[in-house]
Amino acid sequence: MRKDRLKVAVIGGGSSYTPELIEGFINHYGSFPVRELYLVDIEEGRRKLETVGRLAERMIAQAGVPIRVHTTLDRREAIAGADFVTTQMRVGMLEARSRDEKIPLRYGLIGQETTGAGGFAKALRTIPVILDIAREMEELAPHAYMINFTNPAGVVTEAVLKYSGIRTVGLCNLPIGTKMQIAKLCGADVSDVSIEMAGINHLNWTTRIVVGGADITAAVLNKAAGASGLTMKNVPDFGWDAEFLRAMGALPCSYHRYYYMKDLVFEEMNKTFQEKGTTRADDVKRVENELFELYEDPGLAVKPPQLQQRGGAYYSEAAVNLMTSIYNDKRDLQIVNVRNDGILPFLPADASVEVNCVIDSQGAHPVRIEAPIPPQIRGLLQLVKAFEELTVKAAAEGDYAVGLQALTLHPLVGSAKLAKQVFDEILAANAPYLPQFQGHGLGAKA
Amino acid sequence: MRKDRLKVAVIGGGSSYTPELIEGFINHYGSFPVRELYLVDIEEGRRKLETVGRLAERMIAQAGVPIRVHTTLDRREAIAGADFVTTQMRVGMLEARSRDEKIPLRYGLIGQETTGAGGFAKALRTIPVILDIAREMEELAPHAYMINFTNPAGVVTEAVLKYSGIRTVGLCNLPIGTKMQIAKLCGADVSDVSIEMAGINHLNWTTRIVVGGADITAAVLNKAAGASGLTMKNVPDFGWDAEFLRAMGALPCSYHRYYYMKDLVFEEMNKTFQEKGTTRADDVKRVENELFELYEDPGLAVKPPQLQQRGGAYYSEAAVNLMTSIYNDKRDLQIVNVRNDGILPFLPADASVEVNCVIDSQGAHPVRIEAPIPPQIRGLLQLVKAFEELTVKAAAEGDYAVGLQALTLHPLVGSAKLAKQVFDEILAANAPYLPQFQGHGLGAKA
Amino acid sequence: MRKDRLKVAVIGGGSSYTPELIEGFINHYGSFPVRELYLVDIEEGRRKLETVGRLAERMIAQAGVPIRVHTTLDRREAIAGADFVTTQMRVGMLEARSRDEKIPLRYGLIGQETTGAGGFAKALRTIPVILDIAREMEELAPHAYMINFTNPAGVVTEAVLKYSGIRTVGLCNLPIGTKMQIAKLCGADVSDVSIEMAGINHLNWTTRIVVGGADITAAVLNKAAGASGLTMKNVPDFGWDAEFLRAMGALPCSYHRYYYMKDLVFEEMNKTFQEKGTTRADDVKRVENELFELYEDPGLAVKPPQLQQRGGAYYSEAAVNLMTSIYNDKRDLQIVNVRNDGILPFLPADASVEVNCVIDSQGAHPVRIEAPIPPQIRGLLQLVKAFEELTVKAAAEGDYAVGLQALTLHPLVGSAKLAKQVFDEILAANAPYLPQFQGHGLGAKA
Amino acid sequence: MRKDRLKVAVIGGGSSYTPELIEGFINHYGSFPVRELYLVDIEEGRRKLETVGRLAERMIAQAGVPIRVHTTLDRREAIAGADFVTTQMRVGMLEARSRDEKIPLRYGLIGQETTGAGGFAKALRTIPVILDIAREMEELAPHAYMINFTNPAGVVTEAVLKYSGIRTVGLCNLPIGTKMQIAKLCGADVSDVSIEMAGINHLNWTTRIVVGGADITAAVLNKAAGASGLTMKNVPDFGWDAEFLRAMGALPCSYHRYYYMKDLVFEEMNKTFQEKGTTRADDVKRVENELFELYEDPGLAVKPPQLQQRGGAYYSEAAVNLMTSIYNDKRDLQIVNVRNDGILPFLPADASVEVNCVIDSQGAHPVRIEAPIPPQIRGLLQLVKAFEELTVKAAAEGDYAVGLQALTLHPLVGSAKLAKQVFDEILAANAPYLPQFQGHGLGAKA
Repeated sequence: MRKDRLKVAVIGGGSSYTPELIEGFINHYGSFPVRELYLVDIEEGRRKLETVGRLAERMIAQAGVPIRVHTTLDRREAIAGADFVTTQMRVGMLEARSRDEKIPLRYGLIGQETTGAGGFAKALRTIPVILDIAREMEELAPHAYMINFTNPAGVVTEAVLKYSGIRTVGLCNLPIGTKMQIAKLCGADVSDVSIEMAGINHLNWTTRIVVGGADITAAVLNKAAGASGLTMKNVPDFGWDAEFLRAMGALPCSYHRYYYMKDLVFEEMNKTFQEKGTTRADDVKRVENELFELYEDPGLAVKPPQLQQRGGAYYSEAAVNLMTSIYNDKRDLQIVNVRNDGILPFLPADASVEVNCVIDSQGAHPVRIEAPIPPQIRGLLQLVKAFEELTVKAAAEGDYAVGLQALTLHPLVGSAKLAKQVFDEILAANAPYLPQFQGHGLGAKA
Repeated sequence: MRKDRLKVAVIGGGSSYTPELIEGFINHYGSFPVRELYLVDIEEGRRKLETVGRLAERMIAQAGVPIRVHTTLDRREAIAGADFVTTQMRVGMLEARSRDEKIPLRYGLIGQETTGAGGFAKALRTIPVILDIAREMEELAPHAYMINFTNPAGVVTEAVLKYSGIRTVGLCNLPIGTKMQIAKLCGADVSDVSIEMAGINHLNWTTRIVVGGADITAAVLNKAAGASGLTMKNVPDFGWDAEFLRAMGALPCSYHRYYYMKDLVFEEMNKTFQEKGTTRADDVKRVENELFELYEDPGLAVKPPQLQQRGGAYYSEAAVNLMTSIYNDKRDLQIVNVRNDGILPFLPADASVEVNCVIDSQGAHPVRIEAPIPPQIRGLLQLVKAFEELTVKAAAEGDYAVGLQALTLHPLVGSAKLAKQVFDEILAANAPYLPQFQGHGLGAKA
Repeated sequence: MRKDRLKVAVIGGGSSYTPELIEGFINHYGSFPVRELYLVDIEEGRRKLETVGRLAERMIAQAGVPIRVHTTLDRREAIAGADFVTTQMRVGMLEARSRDEKIPLRYGLIGQETTGAGGFAKALRTIPVILDIAREMEELAPHAYMINFTNPAGVVTEAVLKYSGIRTVGLCNLPIGTKMQIAKLCGADVSDVSIEMAGINHLNWTTRIVVGGADITAAVLNKAAGASGLTMKNVPDFGWDAEFLRAMGALPCSYHRYYYMKDLVFEEMNKTFQEKGTTRADDVKRVENELFELYEDPGLAVKPPQLQQRGGAYYSEAAVNLMTSIYNDKRDLQIVNVRNDGILPFLPADASVEVNCVIDSQGAHPVRIEAPIPPQIRGLLQLVKAFEELTVKAAAEGDYAVGLQALTLHPLVGSAKLAKQVFDEILAANAPYLPQFQGHGLGAKA
Repeated sequence: MRKDRLKVAVIGGGSSYTPELIEGFINHYGSFPVRELYLVDIEEGRRKLETVGRLAERMIAQAGVPIRVHTTLDRREAIAGADFVTTQMRVGMLEARSRDEKIPLRYGLIGQETTGAGGFAKALRTIPVILDIAREMEELAPHAYMINFTNPAGVVTEAVLKYSGIRTVGLCNLPIGTKMQIAKLCGADVSDVSIEMAGINHLNWTTRIVVGGADITAAVLNKAAGASGLTMKNVPDFGWDAEFLRAMGALPCSYHRYYYMKDLVFEEMNKTFQEKGTTRADDVKRVENELFELYEDPGLAVKPPQLQQRGGAYYSEAAVNLMTSIYNDKRDLQIVNVRNDGILPFLPADASVEVNCVIDSQGAHPVRIEAPIPPQIRGLLQLVKAFEELTVKAAAEGDYAVGLQALTLHPLVGSAKLAKQVFDEILAANAPYLPQFQGHGLGAKA
C-alpha cells in the first residue's frame, strides 16, 4: 500500500544547509527510500545550486544509495508528483537579512532575522513566495506534505495553514537542540530524556523534563541558572538569573533573551554595529563563502564538519526524522509547528504552535500539555501571537494598516511612531520583494 | 532510577477474570517485574479469592517467574507501598447485577449493568468504595497509579478524578476489542491498524481508521453495515443499517445499540425476561460457577480457554500494556479513560473521556482528535456526560435530588415520574450498599 | 436622523393573529410611526388576507391613526424598502400541521407542531421559504430587521442567522407569558417582576426571579409545584412535582412537559387521537373558522376578545415592544432569540438561543446569564440544540443523511429505525413543500 | 420590600474628592435615600477628615436633606450594617504616589500611579487593605455592595473578586468622561450618545459609537485624529495619528498613550523630572492643599468649582448613578468593572474587565460586546491582564517570584534585570505598607 519510491523536492536547494539534508537522506535510506531528489533554486542562486548538486551527487555515489539528484530552476517540475516538498529558501538572500538586522538598529531597536522588526520584514518577503509554492502543490502534488524550515518558521507555517489546504508541518532545530543541551546539562543520554515544550516557534518554554521516568524539571532549572551553552549558535549566550528561572517555573528558549534581556542584547548588538558596522548577517556571509569553497572541492564527498558551525545543527536529523515517521506511520513524538486548535487554549484555534506531537501517516497530532502554564508565559505568548497573526495577514494581503498595528504591538518595537518609521523604511528597502504592497499601502506611501 | 521490584495490589482479586491478569504479568515479566502481587477481596469472596490465589500460584510456578502471590482481606496491607493498584471489584456481587438488570425491565426500561438505570445503580454502589480505596492510596501509596477496570468505568474514573488527588487511569477492553474487530473485518494485521476513538467509556465512536498509512474509514463503514461480530460478548449482535452508518460518519461502539436500537434491544431483553425470568446476570453466574469449578482443579496451571467466553477478552492485554508503558516511560498510544481538559472541547474539563493517549511514566496524555465531531455525536455525548456528572455527584455526596435529575435525563429513562419510581426502588433494593443516602435522601424517602 | 415614516411588511399577513399586531401598531403609533403596512400572503390564503386587510382598515380608521394598509400577493413589493419585515406564515397551512401531529402518533411518538418529529417536519417546510425571504431582503431591504415569529422559531431564526447576512431577531410569546404567569402566581405587579431565562426557544428555564429587588426564585419554585396555569394555551396543564422542581433549581417552561412528562403527554394525546381521530390542529381549525367569521363582520373594528383563546396571547405586545425599542434605540431588556456567541458557552457559537437581551438600534445584545446552569439543564439543551443544528442543515441543504441523524437524536424519537420510517413518511406526505429533497434524498428514496 | 433608609460608608472619607460624592448624594436623595453617611479615615488623615466632614454637613444643611454625617476612625463601626461601602483611600498618601512616579523614572521607565511599575507598587500597598475591608464586610455587612474607586481600580477590584465573597463593582470616571468627550467632539447631546467599551480599567477601547440610532464609529475616528481634549486631566494630551486610529478600528482611551506613545510620554515626564525634580504627584499635592484651604472656609456650603480641576470629574455622577440603579433595580446600562466570565472570551474567566453592564438590584451584568476585537487589541489586553493577574497574586500572597514575573512582563518595564532592580527598590521604599512581603520575599531580600 505504501509507495516504495519517493520523490522529494527541496525548495532553496542551493542553500549551504543542503548537505545536511543529503546526509540525512543517505543515512535513512533504508526506512525512507528517496529515489528522485529535486533541488530547486532561482536564477540568482544558480551557481550555488550547481555546486551543491554536484556535492550531493558525490555524497550519494560514495554512499552507494540509488537516489537520483536533479537540480532545476523550474519549481513546478520539482513539485509535480512530489511526496514531500521541503522549503528552506531565503527570499532576498543574505543581503536582505543584513538589512533586516540593520534597519531596526538605526532606530534603537534589536535587529534580528526572526523576531521583532527584522522578523517582520522577513515574513513580508517570504509569505507571498510560500503561498505560491502552496498553490503549486495544490495543483501538482495535492497529497504531498510541505515540510517548512523557512524562518520565521512559525509565521510562515501559519500563513500556509490559513491560506492553503495543503498538508504542512513547520520545523525548527531549536526543540531538538534544547533536548540535547538539557541532556548534556544533566549528564544523561539524550534517548532517556523526554521534554514537554509549550509555545510557538522561537518562543517556547520547556515546561517538563523527564529523565528515566522521573520529573526533574525543578532540578534542571537550578542547574540551568547562569549556565552557558543553553542557547543556539546565533543567540548571545547570556546566562539566566536563578531567581528569575525559579519564578518562571519553566526553561525559556534561546530566543527569550531577545525579550527578557532586550537591554543587554541590544547593547551587545549595537556595540558591534557601531564599532564595525556589521551584524550577524555579515558573519554568516563569510561562513557561507568558506563553506561553498569547500563544497566546490571535487574531492569532497561527505558533509564537511565546518557546516556544524553554521548554526543549523540537527536540522537534518529533525527533518529526516519527521519525514520518516510520516512515511512509516510511526506514531512517535516530535516537537513541530502545527495548527493550534485548542492545545494552547489561550491562543487562537488557527494559530501555529510548536508543541509535542504524535507523528503518523496522517500528519502531526498535538499531545495535551500537562504542565500548568502560568500567566507570565501565557501573556507573552498571547502578545507575540497577536503580532504574528497581524503579520501573516499584512504579508498575505498586503495590508499596510494591519502591518502598522503588528509592528506597534511587538515588544521589541512598542511605539506607534517608531513602528511607522521602521515599517516605511522596510517597505522602501524591500520594494522588489513586496509586490503585495504595490497596490494600496506602498503606493499610497510613496 | 527505576525500581526493579514492583508491588501490585489487585482489588477484587477473587474475580474470575484474575487468571487473565496473572497470565499477563507472567508474559510481561521481562519488561514489568512484578515481585509482590496482592489479591484482595472481602469476607464474602474469601472462598473464590483462595481458589484464584492457588491457581495463580500454580500458573506462576509453572512459568518459573519470581512473583510472590499474597491473598488477603486486609486492603490496607495490600495497598501500602504498592506501585500499581488495579480495581475490578463488583460491589454487591452478581446478585446486585441481577437486580440492576431486572428493576428497570419491570418499568419497561432497558436493564443493563453499565448504562441506563442499571448502570446508575451500579455507580451508586461502587463510587463510595472506590473513593475509600483512593483515600487509602493517598495515605499509603501516594505515588501509585490506580488502574481502574470497575464498571461503569467512565463514571467510576471520573469520581476518582474529581474527589481524589491520586493518579488514576480508567481502562476498558472495548477499544482494543474494537481494533481487533476492525482488523478482522478488513483482513488486516492488527499491528497495521491504527484507530482514533472519540467519546466516553461505552459510548465512543471510531472516528478514523488507518491501515498501512491509508485512511480507510469510509470503506470500513461500508463493510461494517449489517456485519455481525462487531460487538462485545455481552451486547446483542444487531447489525447497523448502511444508510445510518454513512450518515453517522463514524463507527459506533457496541453499546450504542442501547441508544440507537433501544426498541429492538428492549424487545429482545424483555422477551427473555418475560419467558424465563432471567437476564444476562443469570448467564454470567452460570459461566462463573463453571469457571470456578475449573479453577479448583489442582492440575490446572494455565488460564483455561473457557475464560475467553466470559466477556472480558483482552482485559489482561489492555491492563498489562498500560502498566508496562507507564513503568517503562514508553510513549506509545493506547485508548484509555482520563480527565478531558479540552480534548473533547464540548464536554466539561473535569469529565472523564476515553480517547487516544500517549502513555509514559507521567501517565496518559490525550492526543488531539483530528476527525471533526458532527452534532449527532456531540449532542449524545453531552447528554450522557451530563447524566454521568450528576451520577458521580449523587453517588459521592448521597444527593437524592441530583440523582433524580440524573435518571430523568438519561435517554433510556427520560421521564420524571418513571425516574422517581425506579430510583426509589433502586435505593430500597440496595440499601446495605448505599450508606451515603442514609442521612438525607434515603431516610427522607423511607 | 431617525426616519419618521416607517414601512412594515407582514409575511403571512392573512393569519388570524394579524389583528393582534394591528392593535399593537395602533396603540404604539406615537413611538413607532408605521405609515405603510403591507400584509402579504400566497394565492391559497387570498380570501383570508382580504378579510384581515379589511378588518385592519376598520380598526385603523376607528383609531384615527395615519397607517395605510396594503394587501398583496407580491412579496417583493412588500419587502422593497421596508424597515421591518415580520414573518408569521404557516407553510402548508393547518393541513400540514395536522399531518405533523398525526404521523408521529401513528408510530407511538408525540406529535407536536414545534418539537419532535412534528417540529422537524415544520422546519423542513419553513426554512426554504424563510431563506427566500431573507434573500429578497438582502436585495430589496438590506438594512431592515426581520422579526421572526414563525415556528419552530428557534430553528427558523438559526437558519436565517447561518445562511443570510440580514439582521434578524426571533420572537416567541412564551417569555412574556411566563413572566405574566409568575407575576400572577406571586400576586405581584408584572412591572416589578424581572426574570432571567436561559435556553432555546420552547426549551428555556427561568433561572432567576426578582421581585422588587429581591431574588425569590426558590419561593416561586415552591409555589409553582403542582400549580395549574403555568403553561401556554396549547400545552397540557400537568403540574410539576415539588421534589423535581427543587432538584431542577429553575422553573421549566411549558414545553418541557413534552420531555419530562413524555409518557403522560403521549398518553393524553394518543387517547384523543384514538378516540376521535383528532389532534390540536383540528381544534385550531375550528377556532380559526370562528375567528374569520367574526372578522368578516363589517361592524367589527377592534380585535375581538375571542382571539385571546387562540393561543397567541401577548404576541402583539412582544412584537411591537421589540420593534419600538429598536426604532427608538431604547436599551431596555427583552427575551428574544439571537445568535449565541458565548452567552450559553456550552452551546455552539452560531446557535440561536433565547435569552435576556438589551434592545437598541443595533439589535438585540444578550446579557450575561448569572445563574449557574446545572448539568441537567445543560445536557438537555445540548442534545436538543444538536438536533436543531442537524435540522437546520437538513432543511437548508436538503441533506437526507443529516435529517436522519437529527430525528434519531431527538429525545422524542430516539430510535434509528423509527426515525427512518417517520422521516420517509414525512417526506412523502410533504413532497410539494420540500423541493430541497427532490434532487438527492427524496429522489433516492422514491 | 426595599429599605427606605440607607447607610453608606465612605472609606477614605477625608479625600479631597468627597465633596463630589456629597453633592451626588444630595442631588439624588429622592431616588437614593442615604440617611446615615459614615466618612472613615485613618489617624494620619484625621484633620482632613474633619474638614471634609464639616463641609459635608454644611452642604447637606444648605440642601435641606435629612442625611446624617458621621466622621470616624473606626472602620468597623462604619461598615457594620452598611448598604453600600465605597472605597477611595490612598494607602501611603501622596508621598507614596510621589515615590511610585519617581522610582521608575530613575531607571528610565515611565512613572505613573496606575500603570507600569508605579501602578504595580500602588497595587501592592492597596490590595492588603482592600482585602481587610472585604473581610470586615463579610462579617459586618455581608449583603452590602462594595463600590470601589481606588486605583488601580481594575486590579483592586480583581483582588476582591478573587479573594472575597462580597459583592463588588469597580468604578472609574474614564468611561463617562470618554462619552462626554465624544459627545463634545460630535456636537451631540450626551444622552443621545451610546458607546460600547471593551477592555480593562485604564486600558479600554471604545469599539462602537452610536448617536441617534446610527453607528458613527468610523466618522468619530476620523474626527478624533489629532484632536486635543480626548484625554483625562492627568494624561498628556498628545493627539492620535489618523492612520494609526484607522488601523486600530476603535478609539483608544487616554491611558493608551502610556503604551503606544511610551517614548513621547517618557520624554515629557523625564524632562520635567530632570529639570524640576517633580512629577504629577507634586502638582496634585499643591492642588489638594489649595482645595483644603477652601474646604476650611466655614462660609463654603457647596462643592467648590476648583475641584473640577483635580482630575476626578464625573466621579460623583458615576458613583451615585451606580448605587441608585442598584438600589432601584433600574436595569440601565453603565460601564463598570466586573468579573469577566466570558464577556471577553480571550481573557481569564476570573479577571476583572471594564465593559457595558446592565445594572439592577442583583449587581452589574455584562452585555455582549458586538464589535469584533482585532488582534492588536486582544494581544495587548492579554499581556496587561497577565501582568495584573500576577500583580494581584503577588500583592495578596506576598509572593516575590510572582511579583518579579509581573514587572518583567509589563510593556513599560520589559527587562528581567530592570524589573528586579525596580522591584527591590519599591519593596525597600514601601516597607511599612507591605507587611505581606515581610515573611518571605522581603525578608529574603533584605
